Amino acid sequence: MLTLYHHPFSPSSRFIRLILSEYGAAFEERHINPWERPQELLILNAAGTIPVMVENEGPAICGPGPIMEYLDETRGYAIGDRRLMPDHPDARAETRRLVDWALAKFDVEVIGHLVRERIYKQIMPKSAGGGEPDSAALRVARANIDHHLKYFHYLVASRRWLAGDRLSFADFALAAALSCADYLGEVKWNNEEDIKNWYARVKSRPSMRPLLGEKVLGMPPASTYADLDF
Amino acid sequence: MLTLYHHPFSPSSRFIRLILSEYGAAFEERHINPWERPQELLILNAAGTIPVMVENEGPAICGPGPIMEYLDETRGYAIGDRRLMPDHPDARAETRRLVDWALAKFDVEVIGHLVRERIYKQIMPKSAGGGEPDSAALRVARANIDHHLKYFHYLVASRRWLAGDRLSFADFALAAALSCADYLGEVKWNNEEDIKNWYARVKSRPSMRPLLGEKVLGMPPASTYADLDF
Repeated sequence: MLTLYHHPFSPSSRFIRLILSEYGAAFEERHINPWERPQELLILNAAGTIPVMVENEGPAICGPGPIMEYLDETRGYAIGDRRLMPDHPDARAETRRLVDWALAKFDVEVIGHLVRERIYKQIMPKSAGGGEPDSAALRVARANIDHHLKYFHYLVASRRWLAGDRLSFADFALAAALSCADYLGEVKWNNEEDIKNWYARVKSRPSMRPLLGEKVLGMPPASTYADLDF
Repeated sequence: MLTLYHHPFSPSSRFIRLILSEYGAAFEERHINPWERPQELLILNAAGTIPVMVENEGPAICGPGPIMEYLDETRGYAIGDRRLMPDHPDARAETRRLVDWALAKFDVEVIGHLVRERIYKQIMPKSAGGGEPDSAALRVARANIDHHLKYFHYLVASRRWLAGDRLSFADFALAAALSCADYLGEVKWNNEEDIKNWYARVKSRPSMRPLLGEKVLGMPPASTYADLDF
């Protein structure tokens, strides 16, 4: 049995939930508020970050990259054509590059600001740093998001999927990150048709359905969030 | 033929140079000043970061994680016992977790500040942001480094090597990061005996020798830097 420690609006956690679903791996969930750094989490991951996954009585697998590789190493062969890691070393490198981009670079420059300021800080008590979003951080995120979208647009305009001709982990990493911004209405979909079409294709997968039904208390999603034909 | 685009004092680049040497893979070097974001680099890696590696006429392999995995996938089997990625999925996950820690978390909280403020800014022209180090950034790095060292100490006190009983990629990732701080005399080695002994063991490997001979113009290394019995 797999247990996943995650938060519903953590982009890296969303990525792992998506690929667990794609790999047909059932899992139990433990909701974690990462800003609380609970003891339960710190025992598993000294870095205090999510997602963390535990299989049976095994050691904690920490972070989206290590969990992705573990999942592919332990289940990839068994799911045949539905595998999300390509076979060729060049294509594997491209997939990993774009997973890193979506969950690290894009997170630091855009998505992390949006999620922290507009979601986490609305849930956090004032004593823990909750409250009004920091408008400087939001300005940074909003200035950066278009540059990233243009680059993703450039990639999917020349490829069928983000990392190449086949659906891969990279598509789910980017969809996980974008879904958080999309919930908040922070993605201008009208500017770039190819990236919009790409997102519509990923969004229509059954693995996305649970995420599209989730809500932040008191903050309804943008109208396009769960709309498959947005 | 492999070509590596790197800077001598970029911790992630040092990591790749170390593991290329450990894997017995010859490579050509191109020195890159990452703050210049040269066109030659941007064509290969839109993120503008180093290290980047190219094999023959193949596509660019970007970033320390993807390069490490590529190297192991294309050469790991051939080097047998000297392989730096363990076989078991749990041990692989632990290795990757600690590589991420050394090159991402440790870099953001400590090493990146030290290298940027005390090395890159000394080399950069004033017009590009060079000059005196930002003392606030150095204060942050110096406040954080002891917490990281304590954690690494805790790990190597209970294991032969950083990620377990065998030498792995994790050891070289941490040694690469620490070597930059050590050049600057920013590591207090006297506090924790086990981590010092661990570093002495890694430092004595032939792969470390080229790094220990490198100097920043006008800034000699700390006295212990190249001393194997420091």
